[in-house]
Amino acid sequence: MLRGKFIVLEGGEGSGKDTQVDRLKERYAGDDSIVFTREPGGTGMGEKIRSLLLSPDSKDMTVRTELLLFLAARAQLVEQVIHPALEAGKTVISNRFALSTIAYQIYGRDRHEYLPLLQEVGEFVMNNCTPDAYLVLDVTPEVGLERVAKRNDGLTRFDAETLGFHRRVREGYLKHAAIGRYHKVISADVSLGEVSKRVDEEVAYILGT
Amino acid sequence: MLRGKFIVLEGGEGSGKDTQVDRLKERYAGDDSIVFTREPGGTGMGEKIRSLLLSPDSKDMTVRTELLLFLAARAQLVEQVIHPALEAGKTVISNRFALSTIAYQIYGRDRHEYLPLLQEVGEFVMNNCTPDAYLVLDVTPEVGLERVAKRNDGLTRFDAETLGFHRRVREGYLKHAAIGRYHKVISADVSLGEVSKRVDEEVAYILGT
Repeated sequence: MLRGKFIVLEGGEGSGKDTQVDRLKERYAGDDSIVFTREPGGTGMGEKIRSLLLSPDSKDMTVRTELLLFLAARAQLVEQVIHPALEAGKTVISNRFALSTIAYQIYGRDRHEYLPLLQEVGEFVMNNCTPDAYLVLDVTPEVGLERVAKRNDGLTRFDAETLGFHRRVREGYLKHAAIGRYHKVISADVSLGEVSKRVDEEVAYILGT
Repeated sequence: MLRGKFIVLEGGEGSGKDTQVDRLKERYAGDDSIVFTREPGGTGMGEKIRSLLLSPDSKDMTVRTELLLFLAARAQLVEQVIHPALEAGKTVISNRFALSTIAYQIYGRDRHEYLPLLQEVGEFVMNNCTPDAYLVLDVTPEVGLERVAKRNDGLTRFDAETLGFHRRVREGYLKHAAIGRYHKVISADVSLGEVSKRVDEEVAYILGT
């Protein structure tokens, strides 16, 4: 039984996850009982896999390959970062985790037939590190993509997908948000201040602070 | 039902696979009914994954990650190269395929508990492209590693493994050679000429030429 708490922020492109994670990092700066990480990546090896996954140069990557690369990066992250931290009783806050794969690869890529295999490999990879809470920042794809365009910092392979893809991702999030022991869907169409308030409330509740 | 023949050359480090494949490439140069490929790699994406897998810089890669990266590269190769070629009735000759993963990750890395999952993900990835023949070049690890050292062209992460690792890889090959519909274990401790003769006989038999 792992002692630490494991909280994951999830959401589609432009949902404001990065902003929320940055805000939480600032708030908990200097508190080494809280470990922040992100997916794909979060380890030296994982960041190299992340580059392959997000690069617009990887446009001929097959969906099976994409799925397995996300799982490979996750395996490295769980073994090197998440599992040791939870075992040591620390809190882990991750920008994305397993729910992203369901939303993006199963729903976004429309490969529902891959779900049973994903769940099986997911267990192998997660090694009992089931999140205590998923906070899903739910954004209307049109709103999210407009934010991404305004941010103007280059599009990943996923940002550049069709509106239909992003709508399916959202559907995946809303249908599967419940896979965590605890989950909250937080509307992210509203102002940053309102989203921050809801995220803070949830994090405080989960951490019992 | 795929119409082409699929032949895989397998073997431990220093078994002479590369030499044999190069020789076959020369022999069939200009014959576009035969497609040569290799694992990991064989596609643009796969070669990038290969670099991660073989680089001595990747020494902190976990075994789960290693396993999933090999499968990711294989998925890309099957979908882009092997399946289309076999469907078009071509012969595919590959330097390594699924048997390598059993020999190296399950036996070499001593993770026998991963075998059922590997077999399941393997099916997902291979998409009915089961080799018609595995030709296993069987080398005594001491002999093979001496050849690798003499070659003096830099060690991969696998070359640099312990003798115990290479002995387990060989055990995996010998125990699992039979997973192909047809397999031959060819001693590779002998002279290049003798190995070449046996490989040529087997390839001719499989191709019915």
